[in-house]
Amino acid sequence: MSSDNSLLPLARAAREASRVLAVTPTEQKNRALLEIADHLERSAPALHQANDLDLQTARAMGLSPALIDRLTLDSKRLADLARAVREVAQLPDPVGEVMEEWQRPNGLRLLKRRTPLGTVGMIYESRPNVTTEAASLCLKSGNACLLRGGKEAFHTNTALAVRIQEALVLTGLPQACVQLVPTTDRKAVEEMCHLQGYLDLIIPRGGPDLIHAVASMARMPVLRHGAGICHAYVDHETDSAMAEEIVFNSKVSRPSACNSLETLLVHESVAKEVLGRLVPRLEAAGVELRGDDTCRRLYPRMKAATEQDWFAEYLDLTLSVRVVKSLDEAIDHIEHYGSHHSDVIVTTNASTAETFLAAVQSAVVYWNASTRFTDGGEFGFGAEIGISTEKIHARGPMGLNELTTYKYEVRGQGQVRI
Amino acid sequence: MSSDNSLLPLARAAREASRVLAVTPTEQKNRALLEIADHLERSAPALHQANDLDLQTARAMGLSPALIDRLTLDSKRLADLARAVREVAQLPDPVGEVMEEWQRPNGLRLLKRRTPLGTVGMIYESRPNVTTEAASLCLKSGNACLLRGGKEAFHTNTALAVRIQEALVLTGLPQACVQLVPTTDRKAVEEMCHLQGYLDLIIPRGGPDLIHAVASMARMPVLRHGAGICHAYVDHETDSAMAEEIVFNSKVSRPSACNSLETLLVHESVAKEVLGRLVPRLEAAGVELRGDDTCRRLYPRMKAATEQDWFAEYLDLTLSVRVVKSLDEAIDHIEHYGSHHSDVIVTTNASTAETFLAAVQSAVVYWNASTRFTDGGEFGFGAEIGISTEKIHARGPMGLNELTTYKYEVRGQGQVRI
Repeated sequence: MSSDNSLLPLARAAREASRVLAVTPTEQKNRALLEIADHLERSAPALHQANDLDLQTARAMGLSPALIDRLTLDSKRLADLARAVREVAQLPDPVGEVMEEWQRPNGLRLLKRRTPLGTVGMIYESRPNVTTEAASLCLKSGNACLLRGGKEAFHTNTALAVRIQEALVLTGLPQACVQLVPTTDRKAVEEMCHLQGYLDLIIPRGGPDLIHAVASMARMPVLRHGAGICHAYVDHETDSAMAEEIVFNSKVSRPSACNSLETLLVHESVAKEVLGRLVPRLEAAGVELRGDDTCRRLYPRMKAATEQDWFAEYLDLTLSVRVVKSLDEAIDHIEHYGSHHSDVIVTTNASTAETFLAAVQSAVVYWNASTRFTDGGEFGFGAEIGISTEKIHARGPMGLNELTTYKYEVRGQGQVRI
Repeated sequence: MSSDNSLLPLARAAREASRVLAVTPTEQKNRALLEIADHLERSAPALHQANDLDLQTARAMGLSPALIDRLTLDSKRLADLARAVREVAQLPDPVGEVMEEWQRPNGLRLLKRRTPLGTVGMIYESRPNVTTEAASLCLKSGNACLLRGGKEAFHTNTALAVRIQEALVLTGLPQACVQLVPTTDRKAVEEMCHLQGYLDLIIPRGGPDLIHAVASMARMPVLRHGAGICHAYVDHETDSAMAEEIVFNSKVSRPSACNSLETLLVHESVAKEVLGRLVPRLEAAGVELRGDDTCRRLYPRMKAATEQDWFAEYLDLTLSVRVVKSLDEAIDHIEHYGSHHSDVIVTTNASTAETFLAAVQSAVVYWNASTRFTDGGEFGFGAEIGISTEKIHARGPMGLNELTTYKYEVRGQGQVRI
């Protein structure tokens, strides 16, 4: 790491703070979280004022209404954000959990204990709520964090971080437990990625460009919240009404989410029946369908799917549709084109379902349920720091446990190795 | 990934094989392991012949006797290697294990199941036994592997890999479950590091230069078997005889191992007593001591330790020694200079020990036992693929479990997200 990295003082402070946090009792961490929530609410006027500054700039720059909406921190959103912090205080503390415990024939007692990672870097885009979510999840899991939010939310994030730090100090914790990168300079992202030895993990959360940039620059482990090219396979032994509901919900309930459906695979022997239900309903909901030749023989007005379509994460009201001859063909398609995020089979045949669940190597595999359930809250994890598409360390929805590692504690009575 | 990567056909075959291996029953994997062991023994003449070729080249190149010894595959070592493969067949299969299982209020049944990573790349140096160890551990954990051994062992490794592949085919498994990079070209290491999307993980095993090169080139996750700068802290409340045995064993029993002691920290109030026991014994064993000023006042002939010494992994009969004023000073030293591998406190005070075990953020922390126990076999994991100094995914000795990931299986009855 180069010594002219401008973030080095923050990184050193984060490492020091992480040593304190690693041995901070649950009760004190929870007290800090509640103090943060209270202090954010007490500071409403200052927070709204900071947010107004960002909103003024955003309007002057001609940002889209959708982006301006994301950026807005009104009273309701501030209350939501404080409530989310209080919810993290209610979650069980993962740190200290004894994961395994055993004794060796030589009398050594071994214990595998869950511990914080140490320091976590988060790089994210415009929503200011990520600042308080990341801070509270890292704090609860005993990790110091270094946050870099989107430049559009810079004043809001700074005001939030100041209040968080004030609350930390009020509860006797180092203010460096939560730090915000104090610049909108793009160079800071690269500098964060070069803080190996200081940051144990970096989590990019945002669009594919951000994730790709961080993954290629980072010299420490990265947990990607990558693409969700999710599939539904409707088997020939199926309840067509259930298939219709699951596919419709997976595609339409929130098309911009990574757990939304991008490709529908239908067994040829039920294609007419299943597409007969789904095509008019999806089209009525504004979904553009792109089909293979078989689909287009049934629906000649349907746009043709290209090779690129099968690889596409539309994040929009578009769905590619393919008719397959068998379960194996469906699995081959998913393994070849998918991103191993979330995939579902709709079938009434339990043995077919088990084959699918075993053979599809995705983070989450479903039998007869919407892919939209891939979510920390829906899984019962409480808050979620992202959805990992990695295979290493953590897969799928990441809650507090996924922000931890472990150590082995070995207690002896003077044993030496022969 | 560039399409002129010469390893692309092997990588594609590995990915295909990994899909078969992921759903191969335990019994068939064990049958393949036993067949590999038998087939290696049956092929002794051909294996010795291949090894002779490597040994001739090694002698012609003037390799050191130590390196030539490492390279040698005599009858005893071949028997050891076959026995090690048979032992892996005896280990429990980690794949398929239900790690957690729960139900949501909406009736969804969730299950977290242990699965193979998929494909693993191993890059290692001269010992040919790593070829069969890595192959057998990857096979048992359901992973296809792509192996790149040291160029000195190329003929031996090739002969081993051919026999392993023949045995795989005999038991009905794809031969691409285990593949050796078929060239000694150094460019192949870089090409392996660029097989992102094909290799799920890469494990470099060897000297610091190899590990550093792989870590900086790899575009997929890397599990490093990094430096072991291990410490012993002898507290003021201590059993001096026990301290002597633990320190002596940790330093001297195998100085070239990563779990050997590099730095001794002694509380000032017992320094005279403890060093009085240890210094003559260590010196008699050929250990060079490098001390701080306090040590050198007690032993003026002792070499002075420099700042570099506290950061050094000697892997040799050298030990740096420092006298500290308190437990906190010892912990600060370990956190600042250590590599978070294995560290021990020797004390009779349980509460002091617990403070140390909690505050030292190393993969393995010991109370009153030698650091030399950091080892898969000594931990009871059976075979070990390396010792991780990462915090992400796996820490400390890595056995079969550490070569796996998990997926969530969600079984519903038509649930959709509202």
